[in-house]
Amino acid sequence: MPDKKNRRILFSRLMVGEPKEEDFELIEESMPEPGDGEMLLRNLYVSIDPGSRGRLSGRDSYVPAKPLGEVMDTQSVSEVVVSKHPDYRFGEIVAGYHGWQDYAISDGKRLERVDPGLGPISTAVGVFGLPGLTAYIGIRKLLKVGTGETVLISSAAGAVGSIAGQIAKIDGAHIVGIAGGQEKCAFSKKVYGFDQMIDYKSESNMSEALTRACPKGVDVYFDNVGGEILNAAVANMRRFGRILICGQVADYNLEPEQRTGLRDVSAFIGKRLDMRGFVVLDHSEFFDEARKVMADWIKGKQLTYREHIVEGLENAPRAFCGLFRGENFGRGLVHVADPST
Amino acid sequence: MPDKKNRRILFSRLMVGEPKEEDFELIEESMPEPGDGEMLLRNLYVSIDPGSRGRLSGRDSYVPAKPLGEVMDTQSVSEVVVSKHPDYRFGEIVAGYHGWQDYAISDGKRLERVDPGLGPISTAVGVFGLPGLTAYIGIRKLLKVGTGETVLISSAAGAVGSIAGQIAKIDGAHIVGIAGGQEKCAFSKKVYGFDQMIDYKSESNMSEALTRACPKGVDVYFDNVGGEILNAAVANMRRFGRILICGQVADYNLEPEQRTGLRDVSAFIGKRLDMRGFVVLDHSEFFDEARKVMADWIKGKQLTYREHIVEGLENAPRAFCGLFRGENFGRGLVHVADPST
Repeated sequence: MPDKKNRRILFSRLMVGEPKEEDFELIEESMPEPGDGEMLLRNLYVSIDPGSRGRLSGRDSYVPAKPLGEVMDTQSVSEVVVSKHPDYRFGEIVAGYHGWQDYAISDGKRLERVDPGLGPISTAVGVFGLPGLTAYIGIRKLLKVGTGETVLISSAAGAVGSIAGQIAKIDGAHIVGIAGGQEKCAFSKKVYGFDQMIDYKSESNMSEALTRACPKGVDVYFDNVGGEILNAAVANMRRFGRILICGQVADYNLEPEQRTGLRDVSAFIGKRLDMRGFVVLDHSEFFDEARKVMADWIKGKQLTYREHIVEGLENAPRAFCGLFRGENFGRGLVHVADPST
Repeated sequence: MPDKKNRRILFSRLMVGEPKEEDFELIEESMPEPGDGEMLLRNLYVSIDPGSRGRLSGRDSYVPAKPLGEVMDTQSVSEVVVSKHPDYRFGEIVAGYHGWQDYAISDGKRLERVDPGLGPISTAVGVFGLPGLTAYIGIRKLLKVGTGETVLISSAAGAVGSIAGQIAKIDGAHIVGIAGGQEKCAFSKKVYGFDQMIDYKSESNMSEALTRACPKGVDVYFDNVGGEILNAAVANMRRFGRILICGQVADYNLEPEQRTGLRDVSAFIGKRLDMRGFVVLDHSEFFDEARKVMADWIKGKQLTYREHIVEGLENAPRAFCGLFRGENFGRGLVHVADPST
């Protein structure tokens, strides 16, 4: 492939407020060459994740700040096109963090072989990747949701929330979701089986809306957004309620001093609440179980997932910016190429 | 005792901001008469607790609002002076919630016999009452503090914090305390064994002060105050840090919309923090163990406690108001009377 170029999308300007397409730059470089012990990967699908935003303000926040000029290193599903690595061979499909580029070099670290028996390869960065694993491990291993509990989930139509809701339902919970817009709400009820959905775009007082939707109160809140919805959830939690903090999308575009925060800490005493932050990578001992169980559920039609696939690497920045306007509907992926074999 | 009167201090005006003595009213009533199955108690010591403030604004908050005109029902150590109850007899010392009055009627509910072998009877509402039990159960059963951990404690010179610090130290932790004023800080180091003390009154930036005091970060924060100190603690927590919310004194005098709150919820993800609210009454299965172990430590000079005893029931309101100006130094008690026997 001597003449081929490698398109790469770089993080090129520190973000202030909502991400803009101009915060990224598409460049073309010559193809990278794998050295001994390395391999050349061709990206097939790459993810667009709201969680990336936290690193793009130049501040160390919940992850270290990402330096300007680096390629966006989101999750990826790739094909091995040249291997000088002893454990991988041409044509294998792998998942890693190779991000927004056509090709990447890997030394095999932070890389997993994709099991084609689980489902289409895009699912390796969706229901069988971080979003699905986050949902499974969050609901089953950390929150340990039980029969009859009321489980509230924000971003309920999203990649994590939609799976979390279905798993909580499988485990016998009453599931209430929050999403933006009637379409997402109707779909989430019909397809994901949410017992109730709240359209935050049509509610002026989220706390009152939650009280209507959960008259007995909320036992478990799976929080993907933070902000006012977190405060509304705290106001509606029952005694001994558990809150799992998985994402804080409402805060990602705000400077620290602009953030809503959690106002009523005293409620934690009165209601004996527990709030825990969560990154699924800490719990890799459950990955195999989670994938196996979810694959069985998908085959048995108990679990479904939705992907929001954008065509063409060059459109990744636009799709990323759209995340923060609620334009995606399902796991955000960019289709870069098809496997050669 | 036909001519004796019963002095009672009532909650008589809804509180706004700092408590004022005029928010209470001292009345004299005729002596109450115990019916069948009841007993007449004479209060010996009654407590003054900052946590009472939450109920005195007319709002249901972390406890239900207290109605105007009721006697202040704080903890009490009393002597049985007349008993028509089958399980109690004249002269027994009991602990309950009979509050700011000379005499009270009890039906035996929410009442415990005081074990005189543990220590002076005042300790039944101090180190062997809710403050000491909160400290023991918080440190040992909920936080499970381990050797080498850095444990930060606010209100470190107070009834709960001073015991919590000493127990964490017994369990091998490095203990850092926060208190107001050089006297409390020096005493806490010398007598309670805090490795470091931070005088919040002399610090303009608590987060920086914590970073200096805890350069490796904080593993465990035992929070008695909330407000800016909680935010400073969150900023200095290590990964997988645990926060136990025992009190929020900084918030008690504020309307809900004035409260500082917890600003950086995203830090809970990045640092995998866990924050839990705690009321010791939920954990009565540990009371016997806690009292026995603490009594042994006190006998062995491993644990000490300090009482701030105010003389005379009529001074309870002034002492309560002083709590919020940091005027107490140790467990706040009012000495009402001595036992007759």
